[in-house]
Amino acid sequence: MTMHVVIIGGGFAGLYAARRLARQPVTITIIDRQNHHLFQPLLYQVATAGLSPADIATPIRARVEDFPNVSVRMGAVKRVDLKAKLVELEDGTLSYDQVVIATGVRHSYFGHQEWADDAPGLKTLDDALEIRRRVLTAFEAAERDDDLARSADLTFVIVGGGPTGVELAGAIAELARYTVAGEFRSFDPHRTRVVLVEGGPRLLAAFHESLSKAALTALERLGVEVKLDTKVTNVSDTGVHMGDVFLPARTVLWAAGVQGSSLGRSLGVELDRAGRVKVNPDLTIPGFPDAYVVGDLAWCAGPDGQPLPGLAPVAIQQGEHAADNIAAVIERKDRRAFKYWDKGIMATVGRANGVAQTGKLRLSGFIGWMTWLFIHILYLIGFRNRVIVMIQWVWAWVTYGRSARLITGIPLSPAKRALAPAQVTAPARAPAPEVGK
Amino acid sequence: MTMHVVIIGGGFAGLYAARRLARQPVTITIIDRQNHHLFQPLLYQVATAGLSPADIATPIRARVEDFPNVSVRMGAVKRVDLKAKLVELEDGTLSYDQVVIATGVRHSYFGHQEWADDAPGLKTLDDALEIRRRVLTAFEAAERDDDLARSADLTFVIVGGGPTGVELAGAIAELARYTVAGEFRSFDPHRTRVVLVEGGPRLLAAFHESLSKAALTALERLGVEVKLDTKVTNVSDTGVHMGDVFLPARTVLWAAGVQGSSLGRSLGVELDRAGRVKVNPDLTIPGFPDAYVVGDLAWCAGPDGQPLPGLAPVAIQQGEHAADNIAAVIERKDRRAFKYWDKGIMATVGRANGVAQTGKLRLSGFIGWMTWLFIHILYLIGFRNRVIVMIQWVWAWVTYGRSARLITGIPLSPAKRALAPAQVTAPARAPAPEVGK
Repeated sequence: MTMHVVIIGGGFAGLYAARRLARQPVTITIIDRQNHHLFQPLLYQVATAGLSPADIATPIRARVEDFPNVSVRMGAVKRVDLKAKLVELEDGTLSYDQVVIATGVRHSYFGHQEWADDAPGLKTLDDALEIRRRVLTAFEAAERDDDLARSADLTFVIVGGGPTGVELAGAIAELARYTVAGEFRSFDPHRTRVVLVEGGPRLLAAFHESLSKAALTALERLGVEVKLDTKVTNVSDTGVHMGDVFLPARTVLWAAGVQGSSLGRSLGVELDRAGRVKVNPDLTIPGFPDAYVVGDLAWCAGPDGQPLPGLAPVAIQQGEHAADNIAAVIERKDRRAFKYWDKGIMATVGRANGVAQTGKLRLSGFIGWMTWLFIHILYLIGFRNRVIVMIQWVWAWVTYGRSARLITGIPLSPAKRALAPAQVTAPARAPAPEVGK
Repeated sequence: MTMHVVIIGGGFAGLYAARRLARQPVTITIIDRQNHHLFQPLLYQVATAGLSPADIATPIRARVEDFPNVSVRMGAVKRVDLKAKLVELEDGTLSYDQVVIATGVRHSYFGHQEWADDAPGLKTLDDALEIRRRVLTAFEAAERDDDLARSADLTFVIVGGGPTGVELAGAIAELARYTVAGEFRSFDPHRTRVVLVEGGPRLLAAFHESLSKAALTALERLGVEVKLDTKVTNVSDTGVHMGDVFLPARTVLWAAGVQGSSLGRSLGVELDRAGRVKVNPDLTIPGFPDAYVVGDLAWCAGPDGQPLPGLAPVAIQQGEHAADNIAAVIERKDRRAFKYWDKGIMATVGRANGVAQTGKLRLSGFIGWMTWLFIHILYLIGFRNRVIVMIQWVWAWVTYGRSARLITGIPLSPAKRALAPAQVTAPARAPAPEVGK
């Protein structure tokens, strides 16, 4: 009988594992909660209305359509029974010969899960659309509200100074200063405050210090207020506490940390503090040679003994490596230890500005951004997406426009925010509104 | 003091009224529940995953950015007090000198509002995304379900044989036969049944009979089952009753009729049976010379004494005409009666097939579609949208692909449909699934 491989998660790690393994004599089932593979490095662009969801996502089915031995099942996995070799879904059970677990991470509120409603994070398309809705709705509220409420409407707090936080802060500042600048009548969008709060001493801690400085300078030039060495101690629907300081803000976004997806905890194996699964050098789970964990959910030491970061290239290489090790088992060869080929790290910082480093090469400013642009378009999966994204970027760059400024969807939470948008007190009989002159 | 004009609704009628009037010495406030203007004739393409929301929608603000005397307010209007000349919003009140009411229509269930959850209609972007979610989720369920449930999963019933129903039926048939044809393993998507139910004796009743026949032939060639002279007597979450006949179907879409938006009823003036406001020839409400109703919400007789149809060209021309009449009042000239310049009607019927008629000219098939394509791209507002949409259409035509096949968002209703997607009974310990060979 053909070997059956179950791959849980259709992100970079899972999808690349499936495509690498598909030419082997195996049957493969990919399970994902979503029907789409997401190009996550560009998710912040959906959250800030620069791109549409379909620009950075394709159906998982479409990516494996050419392999008749690969099937896709949309569904939620409750538990993996490593001993019985069973995957339990909410609506059924699958047995496997080999399993590849690639369910990634979610944002972590460091024990303050109650902040989730008031400070959404950015991992899925639905997260991005929720953030987009909140950001755009805040400007709409500011047009309507009185001046006191307006200050909070126009304050955007981003918690966490890693790549996601830096990219969100830069994009929101750009949105306010350029895109919507001329569209409001009762306030000047330049009044918008974008506050980036980082607990550590510098932004982009994973980058070289010179690039952290370059990012700081670029953000400050965009008008972003960066607060380093500052811990957020409470988040509510009215704003953010940082120790004794309270900053009123309608919109708070969370980019401060991640934790392994809950499936990791269900395995009953050793995890690190962030809930990532400690894997053997060959990416299998200790004691379970038929179970691999790859991508962000894996705790896998790099050459310096530190865990490899949660990056798309790590996920892609690990997914392919797991596939190669499964192929080795089929061919009765030895499994090999995973070695990460470090291609570097990069991030954008607002309009046409970015930082990138690989080995000793460090780029910032426009050339850093061009590098970022080139690499991301190169990696964007699927020809169509690449062309469309390129056109939209060029267009956005020329016009300062953003193509997807739509407020859609019912608010996920907290409902009151957008359903009852304004706390303005309007007189029973208002005079003609103060529009224009 | 400058005259204050309030325009309620940022669709074709409202937006064109605002842009036409903006160069007059007036201040204008546009109020809309949504932040975007929607190119509604292409909405069915969003519902069937051919286009992204941002391809057919732009922020209303962006469309009037260049006019400092025009402001936009996102909010819901509860009531217009025609005597006191006040617009009551959920969060305030505005007074006006002239008001233009252009809130359009919603779908009508002919007294069976309880069918709404099981048979969503198509008027807004959120409607379109809900339909897209249901259509795509149905295929996902079919991959998982047993054969009995699968028949219902793969049955799509569209109620109403007007342009929207015909376009939806054609697009879903195309989606099943071409786009997703190779992507499923446990069934052949060609098994999909698309059933178009029309109460009258022919499709596209507003068109010449020869075009109704052409549309019928084209749809049947795509595999659509068309049931004419057939009334839907009940809709539930398991399917559709047509008299004694019950058709099990997971997905039912409603394209059978419209009614004026609720704001019309709040006016206390004469309405037709469908809730449209009967207007004077100059588009004002009888008795209220400062209040205009334009677009789909207006009942306005054409040259034959019949009401003008709910079409974008009618809405655009009426919006501009109301603006001209307001300008005439400012210049102390006479208001003029509205005359519709009939540019014809058109619809698509699946892949590269369409019908169009203007005057005595009647086009069908490929040439009908090319006409449709040309006109729609011409009208698509905003240069960027036009280019992007053109590229995506050409791409889709070459590849049979659809660019926006994403299942996103929490299900609006009924919740059980997608949260607990499958009623399959899986054995506690399933054998390796039957994927591939």
